[in-house]
Amino acid sequence: MVKVNENYLKLEKNYLFIRIAEKVNAFKASHPDATLIRMGIGDVTLPLAPVVVDAMKKAADEMGVKETFRGYEDSGAGYDFLRQAVSGYYKSFGADVPMDDIRINDGAKSDCGNLVDIFGDDNIVLVTDPAYPVYVDSNLMSGRKLVYADSDESNNFAALPCEEGYVLDGVMVHPDIIYLCSPNNPTGSVYTKEQLAAWVAYARAHGSVILFDAAYEAFITDAALPRSIYQIPGAKEVAIEMCSLSKTAGFTGVRCGYTVVPSELTATASDGTQVSLKQLWNRREGSKFNGVSYPVQRAAEAVFTDEGLKQIHENIRYYQENARVIAETMTALEIPFTGGINSPYIWFKCPDGMDSWAFFDKMLNEIAVVGTPGAGFGKNGEGWFRLTAFGDKENTIEAMARLRKMLSK
Amino acid sequence: MVKVNENYLKLEKNYLFIRIAEKVNAFKASHPDATLIRMGIGDVTLPLAPVVVDAMKKAADEMGVKETFRGYEDSGAGYDFLRQAVSGYYKSFGADVPMDDIRINDGAKSDCGNLVDIFGDDNIVLVTDPAYPVYVDSNLMSGRKLVYADSDESNNFAALPCEEGYVLDGVMVHPDIIYLCSPNNPTGSVYTKEQLAAWVAYARAHGSVILFDAAYEAFITDAALPRSIYQIPGAKEVAIEMCSLSKTAGFTGVRCGYTVVPSELTATASDGTQVSLKQLWNRREGSKFNGVSYPVQRAAEAVFTDEGLKQIHENIRYYQENARVIAETMTALEIPFTGGINSPYIWFKCPDGMDSWAFFDKMLNEIAVVGTPGAGFGKNGEGWFRLTAFGDKENTIEAMARLRKMLSK
Repeated sequence: MVKVNENYLKLEKNYLFIRIAEKVNAFKASHPDATLIRMGIGDVTLPLAPVVVDAMKKAADEMGVKETFRGYEDSGAGYDFLRQAVSGYYKSFGADVPMDDIRINDGAKSDCGNLVDIFGDDNIVLVTDPAYPVYVDSNLMSGRKLVYADSDESNNFAALPCEEGYVLDGVMVHPDIIYLCSPNNPTGSVYTKEQLAAWVAYARAHGSVILFDAAYEAFITDAALPRSIYQIPGAKEVAIEMCSLSKTAGFTGVRCGYTVVPSELTATASDGTQVSLKQLWNRREGSKFNGVSYPVQRAAEAVFTDEGLKQIHENIRYYQENARVIAETMTALEIPFTGGINSPYIWFKCPDGMDSWAFFDKMLNEIAVVGTPGAGFGKNGEGWFRLTAFGDKENTIEAMARLRKMLSK
Repeated sequence: MVKVNENYLKLEKNYLFIRIAEKVNAFKASHPDATLIRMGIGDVTLPLAPVVVDAMKKAADEMGVKETFRGYEDSGAGYDFLRQAVSGYYKSFGADVPMDDIRINDGAKSDCGNLVDIFGDDNIVLVTDPAYPVYVDSNLMSGRKLVYADSDESNNFAALPCEEGYVLDGVMVHPDIIYLCSPNNPTGSVYTKEQLAAWVAYARAHGSVILFDAAYEAFITDAALPRSIYQIPGAKEVAIEMCSLSKTAGFTGVRCGYTVVPSELTATASDGTQVSLKQLWNRREGSKFNGVSYPVQRAAEAVFTDEGLKQIHENIRYYQENARVIAETMTALEIPFTGGINSPYIWFKCPDGMDSWAFFDKMLNEIAVVGTPGAGFGKNGEGWFRLTAFGDKENTIEAMARLRKMLSK
């Protein structure tokens, strides 16, 4: 008789976004004339850059002609033209990532979820709290145990490694797999090179692997801040990096990202042999993935051309200006916050000691603005709130005006 | 210290296609003037249908305009317009599959590999032999034990369930998860409704789940043969179906398929509660998948329009004609074979009792035709050989002429 994976039965349902949707729908039903402003979901709103659209259409045309039609990709790792472009992009900000260590995917979420397959279920996983829920769920689904590194006001929501280790079931342990995200979702905090180097040193000392989520790297404007973990010496021996074009180039509906598993990264098998994680990952993907749509890969390639980078940076600047407006409002209102600079997220303390959901309700009901309650991202998110800069400029300005008015009462 | 998934270390390397590529490359180096004809890989060669190209370009244009831009899909299960189209397609050949039970994916290989995540690692898996290697590898990666149902000359390479069960480690067992593929890759055999009903009855009797791979359903011309397992009464309580546009509409480079997990399909958890597999699968995909590219979904939708179906059927008929030419040659040469009708694959017995690899070498070296040795698909494939009908018409005719000449010597 078939047996289900019982780890799934222990998962929490994704109450956060279901609950938000329910509350928003109820509000809309009772306030049909309200002009709702959504700043909750991290989805982009500007259209694709013209070079990207053109590249996709040109590739679609190629697929309609026998001589230029493309079927299965040989390896499924991504066409060389795109892997070369990504490698060149890394080089442009000082990270040396060879093409052969890059795999193209249909968005970072797939790889983020699937990468854990190459690790044993007995690994202990560290997640910073608050964090993107996929890190937690992907591991609970395999029955792995988790420890949490506190990101809170005391460290500006950028947790650093704890040399003494972390408590799991009453025992001090060092985690085997470490999830880091910088610029951080949801807190907008960004690790400095020194801070990231501390994590790399910790991983090297304890034989851990870092899964580094760089999905928001394009929002970094301060050249001193690392956009890739591979800007840290020694990272290639301990870190996998996941990145995406979703926020960089508005690809949330196009679906394309990339993952780097360096050739230098190995783990020790139980018989003492050194195993290449890149080989394991390629084996996994070879059996369970058949590559990304050719027109999508051509669209992604166009992002990394000179003209493409120019066009996507116009969009990024638009969102950065929204972030500036939100951050400026927080400063004026004397509300503590992180993010807003080098990040599309603004993470702020709910005024008057309100809890996250109470503040959510207040904003929704009094000024028709939707955000995300920090408590949805972990216990340290309680009392905090996330707004995103991916909306319309006019709506963002209007939402901040409403917020000022609400809080000045 | 990080621990790898040691199940990966027990996997065989994919010797089959590596070995074929090595032999072909060596032949090309020593015979630079030979006109090689490839009939080994199951990849299509005809371009996309015009309506598909147009739909993709139109959607790309929409993505370049703010008012029609689309970001994240709400559920990631596929847009309603496409799920409705797939549901209507099922209805056209007599299968009742509601839209809500369908999830759109980036090609059947991903779902085929990932579906096993929702099942416990202690399930016993049945695979027919010979079979598509992904069924085996996906389960070995999770440490599951396998039993094999022999597909061989005695049953026309269409294994039927064995009521006594299957031997695993010296004990008779009934498998919990059963992989079936019809029309079959590699053997081209097609289950009749009665045969498929026997598998459904077996699964119902033993609480098993069938994972039914219908990737080649579009090649069925005999209206009496089932194109979906849901044409069998009672299948919805025991079967998941995976299908793809790769062969139906030449989407091997576009990447789109669909999986059906019926609402009726449940499993019993260890505490006795009934669990919906559809809910588990949606939970898995919700955390690890973010949906298919919008322009790709529009391209797929176009396949199921009247004009789209007309255009893709022209391509299918082209391949069917190739299959007919190959089958006719086998008949003329008095070589036993399966497939060729209702299937793009022709599976034939190597002449003169040759083993698969010896015949591969003979065909390559004497007539410069590449096929796939049956031994690569399992032990029952030894002494058999697979040719595909996805090539050029002229090349197919030429290859068959060369084969006749080779065997008449």
